[in-house]
Amino acid sequence: MTRATPDAAPVMVTSDQLAALVRQIFERLGVPPSDARIAADVLIYADLRGIDSHGVQLQMQSVYIPGLQAGTINATPNVRVVAESLTTSVIDGDRGLGHPIAHRAMLRAIDKARASGSGFVAVRGSTHFGAAGYYAMLAAERQMVGLAMTNAPSRVLPTHGREPMLGTNPIAIAAPGGREPPVVIDLATSTTSAGRLRLSERSGEPIPASWAADANGHPTTDPAVAVHNNKLLPLGGAAETGGYKGYALAVAVDIFAGLLSGAGFSAALERPVVGHFFGAFDIGAFGSVDTFTTMIDEMARGLRATPPSDPPQTVLVPGDPEHHQLARRSKHGIPLPAISYEFLIDTARALGIDAGA
Amino acid sequence: MTRATPDAAPVMVTSDQLAALVRQIFERLGVPPSDARIAADVLIYADLRGIDSHGVQLQMQSVYIPGLQAGTINATPNVRVVAESLTTSVIDGDRGLGHPIAHRAMLRAIDKARASGSGFVAVRGSTHFGAAGYYAMLAAERQMVGLAMTNAPSRVLPTHGREPMLGTNPIAIAAPGGREPPVVIDLATSTTSAGRLRLSERSGEPIPASWAADANGHPTTDPAVAVHNNKLLPLGGAAETGGYKGYALAVAVDIFAGLLSGAGFSAALERPVVGHFFGAFDIGAFGSVDTFTTMIDEMARGLRATPPSDPPQTVLVPGDPEHHQLARRSKHGIPLPAISYEFLIDTARALGIDAGA
Repeated sequence: MTRATPDAAPVMVTSDQLAALVRQIFERLGVPPSDARIAADVLIYADLRGIDSHGVQLQMQSVYIPGLQAGTINATPNVRVVAESLTTSVIDGDRGLGHPIAHRAMLRAIDKARASGSGFVAVRGSTHFGAAGYYAMLAAERQMVGLAMTNAPSRVLPTHGREPMLGTNPIAIAAPGGREPPVVIDLATSTTSAGRLRLSERSGEPIPASWAADANGHPTTDPAVAVHNNKLLPLGGAAETGGYKGYALAVAVDIFAGLLSGAGFSAALERPVVGHFFGAFDIGAFGSVDTFTTMIDEMARGLRATPPSDPPQTVLVPGDPEHHQLARRSKHGIPLPAISYEFLIDTARALGIDAGA
Repeated sequence: MTRATPDAAPVMVTSDQLAALVRQIFERLGVPPSDARIAADVLIYADLRGIDSHGVQLQMQSVYIPGLQAGTINATPNVRVVAESLTTSVIDGDRGLGHPIAHRAMLRAIDKARASGSGFVAVRGSTHFGAAGYYAMLAAERQMVGLAMTNAPSRVLPTHGREPMLGTNPIAIAAPGGREPPVVIDLATSTTSAGRLRLSERSGEPIPASWAADANGHPTTDPAVAVHNNKLLPLGGAAETGGYKGYALAVAVDIFAGLLSGAGFSAALERPVVGHFFGAFDIGAFGSVDTFTTMIDEMARGLRATPPSDPPQTVLVPGDPEHHQLARRSKHGIPLPAISYEFLIDTARALGIDAGA
């Protein structure tokens, strides 16, 4: 039913329009309204901040809608707390949509941190939860340092390996500023993403050798070879350029999100099920919140004031690019590729939603 | 007084001999015996595992002995707990030797984790604590997942910056195996170390572009330029090759070790004072310890069994290289460069220690 071409101009939509559309689609696919609202909120969080790889345009079509339609994602899961201590919980997500499960888990970690200084919730039996930074931010908004991680199916090579054994295993950490915006760290432990490989293939430009490998596990600079083999390299690339560190970080994420949760490590996952890990550190338990947020402000300003290597490009603080994009897109709307927009509209109509346009 | 040349064969010493020598030197420099014993233990931990950059040969001569002699490291600090909650503490180290302060902090985190599921201790007013992995291992030996981080004076460039604003800010995470050795992750968030730049300068071989920068902050492949400017690049190197992720990880370490501790972030530190952060997660609070250690074993075996990209080089698990070196050096002794050994013997004699050989 799609009529737009890949080169068509993007469609500008407001975050409210997009959230309503996504929420309705989830509801028609059997997701309870409160869960649908959270899932839409997490997706729009990414779209508003320019994290397009984790927004509506890619994940609705490739993950959530087909997963809910096929039943591999459970629309009405029985989410249960299966282990508990004063500062820890383990939640089984019953293969539900990742966002509401993760949201609930992070709020639980925050409650524990408020009571005891720190709190951690490991999750198994969940599915793709969107942008990890969203959950870390839930803590930062409450004067805590937030931590969120997830494992994922294997697509990253371990150092000296020829076959993927690790997910892109992202780590997110957020901390509140005083007058400055929060510092938000949100990074996959691979050097780059499969999406970026595909963009490079389209342009035909050679890619850096630290991005991806050929069939034998050797770094490649040919984007077509990279896309064909789908073997990402860990952050750093080859061993000589520090890739064993990116590999070790991916293993660290698996220890928390895969093993403490009981989900299993990346290579043992059965799609689409994954494990997460959430943490909250109450800043007030370590000292004055004002002192901390003032130090965040000073650090952020100091980093931005670093003499630049390539002016006018300046040094940014982690979270700055997304913060700038948030300001732009809140004002001007979210540019959605025309084919993504049409897919959503077509899906909505097929589900009996009065989707306009 | 040094008689050995840089090319002289290394001196083989047993870990007991070396520990006794180091302990006596610390004691003669005014360090209480119990603290001297811990400091020696941390240093020998690194020497036995081939982590020579954090062992006796470099740090005694460059950091600890001159620091204690000059009084910039306080031999008899008044180490105090300055903030406390059920699961968190902040310790002020009063500029003491980093190892005993860090050891005490990690044991406190472990005690809190035993009582409540998790525990965290941030430290300010400490100094160089040696290999971060040592402290993470204290938790792993007690059926916990251990976390250790420290910030450090600036020598790493933020992405797009020309001047260092971040320390090498290492992260260590350790988790116990069942029949397999523990997984031990211990990595600086820079691509490489200043020591490795010096080794490359000596060999004259070009270095990878992701290691270090020239005066203007641009990647260099000339090891002499790299050593002269002393500007390390964050893990990943330039922005295009993921360096913004290494930069963000260094900022994350500063949030925990620099800001939650009150020590200040890397660029605000006054040598030799730094901040640390320690954490312990009680595995039993999340589920069965046996299940967890069995999963660690399966993950480790699975990773080692990955088809290799360059046989006979196989895939290693983080901690494997150090584990192999530990077996060799426990049996055959620690090879200490002759000039390092002579420096220790000369220092010991000057302090009135009967140092033999």
